[in-house]
This record gives sequence, structure tokens and C-alpha cells, in this order.
Amino acid sequence: MKYSKIPVAQSIVALCVAKNIKHVVISPGSRNAPLTIGFTHHPEIIPYSIVDERCAAFFALGIAQQLQEPVAVVCTSGSALLNYYPAVAEAFYSDIPLVVISADRPIERIDIGDGQTIRQKNVFENHILYSANLHSEIVLESRLADKKLQQKQFESQKHNEREINLALNKAIEDKGPVHINVPFYEPLYDSIEEIEVNPLQIFPEVHDRIYSYQELMPYAQLWNNAKRKMVIVGVAGPNTIEQQFLDSLAMDESVLVLTETTSNLNHPGFFTRIDTLIGPIERCEDAQEQFKALQPDILLTFGGMIISKKVKSFLRNYQPKQHWHVDPKKAYNTFFCLNKHFESRANSFLEKFFSLVETGKGDYAAYWKEIKEKRQAQHDIYMKEIPYSDLKAMQHIVGRVPKDWNIQLGNSATVRYAQLFNWDLSQKLFCNRGTSGIDGSVSTAVGAAVVNVDPTLLICGDLSFFYDSNGLWNNYIPKHFRIIILNNEGGGIFRILPGHKNTQNFDTFFETVHSMNARALAEMYGFEYASAKSPEDINQDLESFFTPSEKPRILEVFTPRKINDEVLLEYFSFMKS
Amino acid sequence: MKYSKIPVAQSIVALCVAKNIKHVVISPGSRNAPLTIGFTHHPEIIPYSIVDERCAAFFALGIAQQLQEPVAVVCTSGSALLNYYPAVAEAFYSDIPLVVISADRPIERIDIGDGQTIRQKNVFENHILYSANLHSEIVLESRLADKKLQQKQFESQKHNEREINLALNKAIEDKGPVHINVPFYEPLYDSIEEIEVNPLQIFPEVHDRIYSYQELMPYAQLWNNAKRKMVIVGVAGPNTIEQQFLDSLAMDESVLVLTETTSNLNHPGFFTRIDTLIGPIERCEDAQEQFKALQPDILLTFGGMIISKKVKSFLRNYQPKQHWHVDPKKAYNTFFCLNKHFESRANSFLEKFFSLVETGKGDYAAYWKEIKEKRQAQHDIYMKEIPYSDLKAMQHIVGRVPKDWNIQLGNSATVRYAQLFNWDLSQKLFCNRGTSGIDGSVSTAVGAAVVNVDPTLLICGDLSFFYDSNGLWNNYIPKHFRIIILNNEGGGIFRILPGHKNTQNFDTFFETVHSMNARALAEMYGFEYASAKSPEDINQDLESFFTPSEKPRILEVFTPRKINDEVLLEYFSFMKS
Repeated sequence: MKYSKIPVAQSIVALCVAKNIKHVVISPGSRNAPLTIGFTHHPEIIPYSIVDERCAAFFALGIAQQLQEPVAVVCTSGSALLNYYPAVAEAFYSDIPLVVISADRPIERIDIGDGQTIRQKNVFENHILYSANLHSEIVLESRLADKKLQQKQFESQKHNEREINLALNKAIEDKGPVHINVPFYEPLYDSIEEIEVNPLQIFPEVHDRIYSYQELMPYAQLWNNAKRKMVIVGVAGPNTIEQQFLDSLAMDESVLVLTETTSNLNHPGFFTRIDTLIGPIERCEDAQEQFKALQPDILLTFGGMIISKKVKSFLRNYQPKQHWHVDPKKAYNTFFCLNKHFESRANSFLEKFFSLVETGKGDYAAYWKEIKEKRQAQHDIYMKEIPYSDLKAMQHIVGRVPKDWNIQLGNSATVRYAQLFNWDLSQKLFCNRGTSGIDGSVSTAVGAAVVNVDPTLLICGDLSFFYDSNGLWNNYIPKHFRIIILNNEGGGIFRILPGHKNTQNFDTFFETVHSMNARALAEMYGFEYASAKSPEDINQDLESFFTPSEKPRILEVFTPRKINDEVLLEYFSFMKS
Repeated sequence: MKYSKIPVAQSIVALCVAKNIKHVVISPGSRNAPLTIGFTHHPEIIPYSIVDERCAAFFALGIAQQLQEPVAVVCTSGSALLNYYPAVAEAFYSDIPLVVISADRPIERIDIGDGQTIRQKNVFENHILYSANLHSEIVLESRLADKKLQQKQFESQKHNEREINLALNKAIEDKGPVHINVPFYEPLYDSIEEIEVNPLQIFPEVHDRIYSYQELMPYAQLWNNAKRKMVIVGVAGPNTIEQQFLDSLAMDESVLVLTETTSNLNHPGFFTRIDTLIGPIERCEDAQEQFKALQPDILLTFGGMIISKKVKSFLRNYQPKQHWHVDPKKAYNTFFCLNKHFESRANSFLEKFFSLVETGKGDYAAYWKEIKEKRQAQHDIYMKEIPYSDLKAMQHIVGRVPKDWNIQLGNSATVRYAQLFNWDLSQKLFCNRGTSGIDGSVSTAVGAAVVNVDPTLLICGDLSFFYDSNGLWNNYIPKHFRIIILNNEGGGIFRILPGHKNTQNFDTFFETVHSMNARALAEMYGFEYASAKSPEDINQDLESFFTPSEKPRILEVFTPRKINDEVLLEYFSFMKS
């Protein structure tokens, strides 16, 4: 064992270990040496070294996303810290416990012209659950002789220990990013063999409010009296809701359950592909009547962000009388009609609530299940007819991903395409939907892959891939990691939006057309590389793509950029019939 | 001409043009379409398209650094904006007018679960000169019929116009980053041919305080009575101080002028290589006496950040009786003894001040100039003796860069090595010393290259290069752009710091040793590539490296990582004799 000689560095390492933080992602630096020394020599810590802090933070986010446990990132002073911000914001909106620990210069060295020195205090203020601004602790042999200095030092130390506890607890309790900023005096590299501090311990609390029957009764009555109940689940980790509750919802004739690929819960009775339900209605002449028939009396929502723009638009225009959201931490007023936030975990709430409600009757679910089957039939016909395109490529990919794989989806177009298909129930799907950025998909996927026994596949667009290609710059990528890049030579999603396509201006400033490919990067980072330009290529490449290998693999699927948007837009029109 | 139909988008474009903003760097997005449409269709704007916002902002910074004029970056809503932060902080500390314009969702869509939506208001609060948080303006045909709505709209518009003016003026007046956040309602793509707004104009003020003789007299008296005056110039653009003033300083026997490569001012009488002066003294037995002989009575400083750690340490320990800093905007208390901040431009101050002071007498300058010559002789001997290393490689490079080239230096080791050599007086040297980060060197250099007639050479380390390799992902790199990568297989600077070298732990978490090279990236981004592993290789490669070419070029210089630190540390010891 080896610790920094600086007490606050010891306290941080000891408290992280005490709170079961196991994975610590470190970016190189000198000011953070006291932390690096402590974390990298602790037997209960798995340290990672990643140079680009933007990638380091997303890598940590990927680990935390999988484990649902806090993961720490450690950096030196200065702009290093600012490169964490995209991942911090993603963690903030995706409820992922990301613990940012930044070394800082002592306060009197800020804004006096020292290098690598910025105003780190509260720098993430807009998107952080807790900012612990620690005091510096000076290690002076002479201090032992000075009572006053000793007392001051003691008080700083105790202040720091409490702040570290509160920050780490907040990350655990509320599942989100926290920031611990710790100024260090030189010398930074001195170490000792045994820990000298015995830091204060404050235990985290479990946030899961249990409602009484009396509290729930009015809502149960509304539920029982409602003819049309819609349940929507946003982003959720696997097994967020127990199977018995899913079964109850599925068998209720008055309940329609809409989920997304990123909800990670499946039932044959659920509507997993919201856009295929609503997109075609938008294009019908009797859209208004159909939407009225779909409009629920009560909307019950679980989970995080909802991807489908179409369902948001529908429910904002056809509001339920009641909207309740269940989550221990927060409730977004996504449809501008939120009545009630149940501050419980889904299972705690449903257990109590289901003991109060009756199974509903009616034709609400049956009617829409029939539509669902029709849509599936249309989908199948359309898929056979369409030319080679993003949609076609995605069809060929989805059908061939092996069971039990973890799938990471890139923003923006990829995740939307993925929503149009049925995935195998054994597969788990993830996407950085907190901020919906293209800035960290690769790093997140690599982080997620590192802590999973089952292999991970990242599917992303070309812009996402190149944006975060530094995500491959580390020594931790497992052999079974796979990337499929849908390379449509630019930001294909802009073609779907109402811009002015096929002008030089549009190509340059919206679609940002390019002719790059990933071959060179694959070589540089030690990946096997293959490419495909047709369904036949894809099928052939995928035959061996998922088999065990000595190196991770990239498959780059080139699609014809100019027809992708037409194929997708026509899809929704075709589905309506 | 083509403008967005949304008035506030028109106002932003019109006011940017009115204030002579010419270069606008746009990252793709949909929410920012109203701005993209306006900027890309304006004949007085040169628009650039860069996907990775971190690079886009540093690219803009490079342009602004060269032109000393405000340059705008434009992005969509969400985490895109956060990727600007490293460059914003660099601009903040390097006094570079970077105008960040971010599209946002309307305020009622924040924190309700919409995609690409974060809390953008004041998000750079710690490092920004002005944050203009604009109000949304709705374009409704029906509003013309509604007096109240019309009035509300009018007031929003006038508020916005004033805020845009204030933000842009601040960037111009105080040379630093500002942020304009503008929420847009859909539709985002509607355009008109003629501008409909006639925005309020507020002119920027010139910040340059002119002191009266009465105000300056006490300082002139102190100056005249002082035997030892030291002038230090930190980072400064070319021609910051007029030649006549430089000559006066150089011929004064009581004045010692210390500059750095990034001061961009040269005089044969100045000490351009501070570390070669002070580094050896630190290693002398009579260091204390030598430092006392060097200690000035008055320290007069100009410019921005000072790179030399050694001079900071010296002056903090051997403080002058008076320290005055001259800058219209700010004065850092770098040596903890600042007496006076003259809020003037260097030339304004010196013109007045020099009319009040006498040329000093004494042996202060002469004594140190003799030392300087000794050092030069020692330097020459040492350079002949040393084995191949970073220092040796740098010697071979410096001597061969053609006249009039612009040189961009990477942090951290590169810029320090560069400080040890004499550069040609015609060369201009730049480095992102505001935050001293490695995060944007490539993008900054590319931006700088784009607006210069003279060619640009970037010299940087391997970590800086790979960190910001997305800086090469754009279509604007001039053919005459050159990069020399000093590849010492990791963060060589950590070997110079007091860590525990040559352990597995040190290699992984401090030095971050790797075996990557830039060949694949060069190929991917259309650069010619050459590599060197010896002084002979370097000489041979450099014979043709700077000649005109059809493609930009990369020269990757591999140095033996394990001896670089020893060669450098021994240098200072050798120099003392």
C-alpha cells in the first residue's frame, strides 16, 4: 500500500474505497499526483489511464452506466477539468453517478498568472448535484510545534472529510455527477506506506419513499375509473421493473404500454416501437380521430428520457387528464400536464399501487394491438421492397446481432433507426440520451465493454465515430468489442429535417458531407477492419464479425447518403396503409 | 442575401457584421439553423464548418489570436456548447476575443426531457466577460393583429439588440470571450431575402487610460532613483511595443529586459531565454548571492502569461520593492508584490513615462550581459556534446525554420524547450499559455494558418498532437501548413518533474507511455508524412520540408524517451560553469 503524504489525498482515497468505488479513471498530470499515487496503489481500486479527459469522463460514464455504481475520474488542474463537462452534463441528465475529482492549485495561486490554473470552484454549477470545494492541507513538519496551525489544519481536515462524504453520498443517493475540487501544495510526489488519517464516515441514505395506502387511494380510484391508461417507459437499465408487474400491465385491457429500445424491458404485449405506431397516424387524413382514440385518460411514466419525438408531440397535443411520473429523484413535465410525482422506485410504487387497483376492461389495448400487428405486416413488406439505405442496412444488422450482447447506440440518427426494429429480448440497449450528444458515444461504449462479461457492440454514425475517435486511445478495449459505423458521409439526420437539401450550402454547413473512412483509425488502434457497401456485403461480413477474435473489430457500412432520407420518410407513409 | 425569418437571428448577424466580425466558425446542428442561414449567406462573412465543437472553438481562437479581432463560433443546443469550454477558458486567460453564439431551446423546454437541451444560461460563468441571455422571439403572422403580443415582441427584440451589442462590445473592448445564448422556436429553416430589422447600435469604447504627468511623476521619481530596473514581457502579439521604446530600454545601463519566445519582441540587448539565465544560478553554490545581484528594485511588466517557472520562483523569493504592470485590462499579482496597475496600452504608457524619466547608469545591465554571453558559449558547447534527444532535435529544428514563418508551440514540454533557443527575429511565436493546456494546439495552429499569408509551423509533443488530432478534421488547412511532432512516446515532461521514474506505475499513470505514431492520421487527413529518428534524418527531412507543396506536411521526430530528461536537467548544471 502507498499513500500520498498529503492527508486530504489519503482521505479521498479512503472514503472512495469505503463507499465501494472500484473504478477510477485517471488522466495524466502532476498536480493530481497525490491522488494518482493513492488510487493506483490501492488493492481495491481498478485504475485506468486515459489521456484525453473528454474521453476519460465518457469512459467512466460507460462503466457507471453498466454497474449503476459511482465511478471516479481524476484530473490535474486547468482546462483538463473543462474537458469533463460534456460527460458531466450527460451524467446529470441520465442519472449516472460520475464522481469528478480535480486537483487544483492552492487558492492564492488562482488568477495570478500561474500555468494550468483556472477558476475550478463550482465550475459545473449548472449541471452538478454537489460541488465539494475542499481546503488545502499543508504538510509541514514544523506544524506539529505550532498549536494554532495544528488546530487550523485539523479543522480543514475535518471540513474536507465531511465534504467528501457529502459529495460521494449525493452521487450514490441521487445517481448523478458530483465534483470534488482539491487544492494541493507542493511537494506532490511524497508518499508513505501506511494511511495516517481515519476519516469521518457519513453513510448514504436510500431514497425511496414508501407511500401509505391512504396516500395512494385517490390515485387508485382515478386509475380504476379510467378507461384508457397509457404507460410509457423512457431510458431504463435492465430489470428496472419486476416481471410480475409487467405481466399485470400487459394483461390489462385498459392499459397500453409503450416502451423504447432503451427501456430495456420487453413483453410481447408491449409497444416497443413507438414511432411505427404514431408516425403513420401523423400522415393519415383522419389523424385527429385516430389520435383521439389513442389519447389516454391517465398517463403513467417511468424511467428517464423518452427518445420518440412523435410521442412527445402527440401527448402535448392530446394531453391525458392525469400524468403521473414515478422516480425517486425527479419528474420531468415532458408533456406539460404533470399532476403527480411519486418519489419511489418503480417496484416499490407498483407493489403498493397494484394492491389497490383492479384489472381494467375494454377494447383500448385490443384495438391498438391490432394496429400494431398491421404495422408489423406493413413493416415487413416495406423492408423487402426498399433499396439499399440506412434503414435497409439497419435491418440486416439488427437481425444478426447475437443473443445477450450489450448494444450501445450512437446519437442522433442511429438510435432513431434502432427504434424501428424488434431487438432480441436478451439484448440490452443503451444510448447517451441525457444530452443526446454525439460527443462521447465511442468512449462510453468502450467503458461499458470493459466491465461486461457479455460482449458489447457499438452502432453509430460516421460523425459520432470521428468526433469521439479518441475514445479508442486507451489500453483497455476488450477483444470482443465491436463497432459498426453507418457511414452515410455526413450528418444524415439533417436530411430528414426541414432544411434545404442538396445545395452546396446545405452540404457544407448542415449535412457536413465528407469522404472519410475509418480504415486508418482502425489500423492505428489495432482493430480488424472490414467494410460493406451492400446488403450482401453486410451479410457476408457479419457471418464472422461477431465470432471471438484476437483483436476488436470495426465494420464500416457505407450507405448512399442521398436516398436515406427518402427511404425513411416514405416508410412512415407506407406504414399508414 | 438570405436571412432567417426570425428577427433575433437577423439582429445577431447584422450586429456581428456591423462590428466587423468576419470569420464565423459553425458546427452543424438544427437549432442553430437560423444563424447558419444568415451567416453563410452574408457576403461579408467568411463561414467555416467544423464538426467537433472543441476543435471549432480552438480553430476560431487561432484566427482571433492572429487577427486580434473578434471571431464567432456558432453551435446548436445541448452538450455541443460545453465542448467550447476549454477554448473559452483559454480565451479568457489569453485575452482573445472569442464570441460564442449558442442556439438554445425556448426556456419552457429546458429540464422537461427534450433532447439536446441543457442549462445553457451563464454556463461559462467562471470564465466569461459577458453572458447575454437573449429572449426568444416568436414569428407569428397573427401577432400583427394582437397589440399586446406585438408590444411584448418589440420589447424582447429591443432587449436582445442591446444585449448583443453589449456582449460584442465587451469582446472588442476587453479582448476576451463572451457568450450570446439565443433560444429559437420552430420553424427554424424559414428564410427571407431582405433583412427586416434595423438593430440598435451601441459603439464599443476604447479602453486605454492616459495618465497625467502628475499621476506618473511619483513613479518616474522611483524609477530615476532605482539602480536596478527589470522589465519582463510575457505573452504578447507582434509589435506590441514600438521600436523606439525598446531601443531606450536596451540602452539603459540600469535596465535588464527579459522576454520570452512568445513575447514576440526582440532586441540584441534583451534576455530572450530566461531559463538559461536563472536555471544555472539555481544550481550554483552561491545562488543566494547571485540572485541578490539580480534582484531588481523595480519590476515593470507588460504582456500576458509568463512561461518561465524559474523567473516566477526567483522573483517571489527575491521580490522587487516595486512591481508595476501595464495593461488596459488586468494585472496579475504574479510575484505577490504588485504595487501598481497602469491601465494603459504599453505604447501609451511608455510614451508618457519615458518623457519623465532619465536614462540610468550603472553596471546592472552590463554585468548580466556578460553572463548572458558566457551562457551562450556554454550552450553552444553543450549542444555539440549531447546525444540525440528532445533538446538536440529542437536545436536542429530551430535552426532550419525559414524566416517570416509563424510558429505555434504546443504545451507543455515543447514551449519550454523552445525557450532555450534563439529564434530568428522575423519569426512570430505563439502558444496557448492562458490555461497552458494540451487540448487545442492543433486546432489553434490550423485556425492561425488559415488567416496568414506567411506559412505556419506547429511544433508539439505526441500527446498534444493525438489529443487534438480532430483539429485536422476540416477543409481549410492550407497547403503550406506544417507540423513537427516531437514524439517521445508519452508525456516527457513528467520525467522532468520529481516523480518516481521508470516504474510500471509511473509509465502508465504519469508518463502514459505509448507506441503510437501519426502516420495513419496523416494519411487520413491528406498530409504528406515523413519521420526522423536521428539528427541526420531531421536535417535531411527538413531540407525539403518547408518548400512549397501540394499537400500540408507532417514530420514526426522520434526521440529516445529515457534520456530526454537527463539531457535537459544536465543542461542547466552544465550552463552554470
